[in-house]
Amino acid sequence: MMTMYDIITKKKHNVELTTEEINWFVAGYVSGSIPDYQASAWLMAVCFSSLSDRETTDLTMAMARSGDMFELGLDGFCADKHSTGGVGDKTTLIVAPIVASCSVYVPKMSGRGLGHTGGTIDKLESIPGFSTSLDYDRFISVVKKAGFAVAGQTGTLVPADKKLYALRNATATVDSIPLICSSIMSKKLATGADGIVLDVKVGDGAFMKNMEDAEKLAEAMVRVAQLAGRKCSAVLTDMNMPLGLTVGNSLEVIEAIETLKGNGPADLVEVVIALSAEMLRLAGKGSEQECAEMARDALNSGRALAKLAEMIELQGGDPQVINDYSLFKQAEFKQEVYAEQDGIISGISCEKTGLISLSLGAGRKTKESDIDFSAGIRFARTVGDEVRKGDLLATVYTSSECDINAAAKELAGVFSYGTEKISEKKVKKIIKGY
Amino acid sequence: MMTMYDIITKKKHNVELTTEEINWFVAGYVSGSIPDYQASAWLMAVCFSSLSDRETTDLTMAMARSGDMFELGLDGFCADKHSTGGVGDKTTLIVAPIVASCSVYVPKMSGRGLGHTGGTIDKLESIPGFSTSLDYDRFISVVKKAGFAVAGQTGTLVPADKKLYALRNATATVDSIPLICSSIMSKKLATGADGIVLDVKVGDGAFMKNMEDAEKLAEAMVRVAQLAGRKCSAVLTDMNMPLGLTVGNSLEVIEAIETLKGNGPADLVEVVIALSAEMLRLAGKGSEQECAEMARDALNSGRALAKLAEMIELQGGDPQVINDYSLFKQAEFKQEVYAEQDGIISGISCEKTGLISLSLGAGRKTKESDIDFSAGIRFARTVGDEVRKGDLLATVYTSSECDINAAAKELAGVFSYGTEKISEKKVKKIIKGY
Repeated sequence: MMTMYDIITKKKHNVELTTEEINWFVAGYVSGSIPDYQASAWLMAVCFSSLSDRETTDLTMAMARSGDMFELGLDGFCADKHSTGGVGDKTTLIVAPIVASCSVYVPKMSGRGLGHTGGTIDKLESIPGFSTSLDYDRFISVVKKAGFAVAGQTGTLVPADKKLYALRNATATVDSIPLICSSIMSKKLATGADGIVLDVKVGDGAFMKNMEDAEKLAEAMVRVAQLAGRKCSAVLTDMNMPLGLTVGNSLEVIEAIETLKGNGPADLVEVVIALSAEMLRLAGKGSEQECAEMARDALNSGRALAKLAEMIELQGGDPQVINDYSLFKQAEFKQEVYAEQDGIISGISCEKTGLISLSLGAGRKTKESDIDFSAGIRFARTVGDEVRKGDLLATVYTSSECDINAAAKELAGVFSYGTEKISEKKVKKIIKGY
Repeated sequence: MMTMYDIITKKKHNVELTTEEINWFVAGYVSGSIPDYQASAWLMAVCFSSLSDRETTDLTMAMARSGDMFELGLDGFCADKHSTGGVGDKTTLIVAPIVASCSVYVPKMSGRGLGHTGGTIDKLESIPGFSTSLDYDRFISVVKKAGFAVAGQTGTLVPADKKLYALRNATATVDSIPLICSSIMSKKLATGADGIVLDVKVGDGAFMKNMEDAEKLAEAMVRVAQLAGRKCSAVLTDMNMPLGLTVGNSLEVIEAIETLKGNGPADLVEVVIALSAEMLRLAGKGSEQECAEMARDALNSGRALAKLAEMIELQGGDPQVINDYSLFKQAEFKQEVYAEQDGIISGISCEKTGLISLSLGAGRKTKESDIDFSAGIRFARTVGDEVRKGDLLATVYTSSECDINAAAKELAGVFSYGTEKISEKKVKKIIKGY
């Protein structure tokens, strides 16, 4: 007879668990027959003893199967992408229409933001009328027509992850690579994509602070996807500064539209093309080079922008926002931030920027918080730019009752200065599982 | 502001906790403001990261203070003893009257047995009329008159240990030396003794399987006692075979009485004298040698036996049991076990013996089980004895509805045979904290 006591003991002594034991644990925890206090002891033992690849795959699959396993039943390759979370990360809004415009489906179930990183769902909801609460049939019908759709996760998507994540969050057992891997990949596997591209952020503003950890996590996720019979790649991208020039919901949607119009900032375009190309490559559209070309063409030709407009309309939003940004809710207050010294900008603190954006109302402090879609930050200058004292660095926006003066003052402090021009590649490495 | 999340995180990263953090955790866990699932994650982190001596002492003291801290207010030295639990361990029944008869108080609060090791309280309750549920005033009055008393623990003795131990027992976090140490020592410190002698069992039938672990635990406990300002010694004793020749409640009381009459088996006498001598030494009664002499004299002169009779009467028991063993409840069934081969007995499996005794009804399978006081095992032969096929090895007793034939058959299997006479010292080492 299996007991949770024995399963905890095995993991405490770094003994490999059987597939049956892992299945039994996940099923028992979701059903409530295994109490939180035993699950948390096990999670802590995993933080110390880790899990083998086989155990991680078994845990991921058991979690995926705890809820609905979607079979999309579409007549073509379905690609999914996932970001481990970054400040200013609006890539989904650009990558999904690019890939969809190249005849690869992107059925994207996405999460809301919490803390200093935003969620794609929140960003899209800044578009007047736009709905992310689609039932499954409508979701699929949008995918069929526009080639992509973005909807909130349904209640029956991986309940095991929902319950385990809440427990990990309360018991300091979040930062374990196999546990992070199983949390992310269980959702990706349950949503039924044929190919998955993971955007693993690395840097001060990311969960993974250094390349070594980021590579470990990326390799674990790619391996699990392969063992589960999916195509998968991980793109490791820099998160030592915000991605692009905007942080905040409508501000980021506008920047995404501008990028699809060919006016995107270089760092954002680099990441977007790399992610899109990997998704197309997994779909069998050609070599890495060919797929990058294809993605650039979709962006430069305006085909991807047209796809975005189509999808916005199908999800109830006003597609005119693409040409008239005044249709977004406008911020009631704004304040400009000026350079306090001469120099070359050498860094923009990612986490501080995210927290300032949060203080302006752009994010959720708790799960129940409302979001101010108009709030956020638009940078006028970025890393590598030479500035003189008094130059405009950024503008902060809000419609909320917050201390905008304090936020502006704090924002001046996120910049660091040096004497040399530096420009670093944003895409650090691609780990290919196919 | 302190949070349990931060306290778990620190211990996960092997960072030393402050005294305030440990006090806050213990108080919060006892009051219920810290949930089980956070406490169990912390306990598992402690199993991996361990605790420093200072942290262990702080934890022990915080636990001790979670309930009543007894101040005995007696006019002389109070000595306490604690055994980590063994099969056939009836030493308290012999040591306490020996020490008391040498003018050192022994106010003993004791636990009940669970699993294959018995508790002193259960053993004493096999004496007709004997009560271990004494209120505090009566307990002290028995100690004053007889020099010692044995009572069950009160509800307010270290509630933190009660709650933490139940959680550790459910989450596979029992076998951590600082946690074992804090559990044992918090109770010893709360009961207010001036000197504490710890009987740390080591061997197959004990919690500590090898000398290395036993020494670590013993040293940790002695250190904590010293830091808390108490005199303390640990006596490491062998638990590779049952102690003495009997296992079971009234059988062990009878063996204790026989030992106090000068008829004790050599292994039991050796351990009893060592423990008694250490208690007397801590009380300032002389050197190790002198105290051992004093203990042997108390035993051989019958003074200790008289003390036991006095204490039995004061706690409501019939002191005539000392001279008439038929006053104990007699087993309804018994069966003899004979040697199946010629040879020299080289071992008697401790754990198996304990489990057979449990199956005969001598112990509790769950907290709620009733005990059959008459049940148990009496060995006719022991390790080192030469036997011939057909010789009587042991007798099993029960009044319960159990399979006595199966128990007898199994008992034949606890003996192992060799060709050489071996005789090992039972007392392996003494670690003196004073």
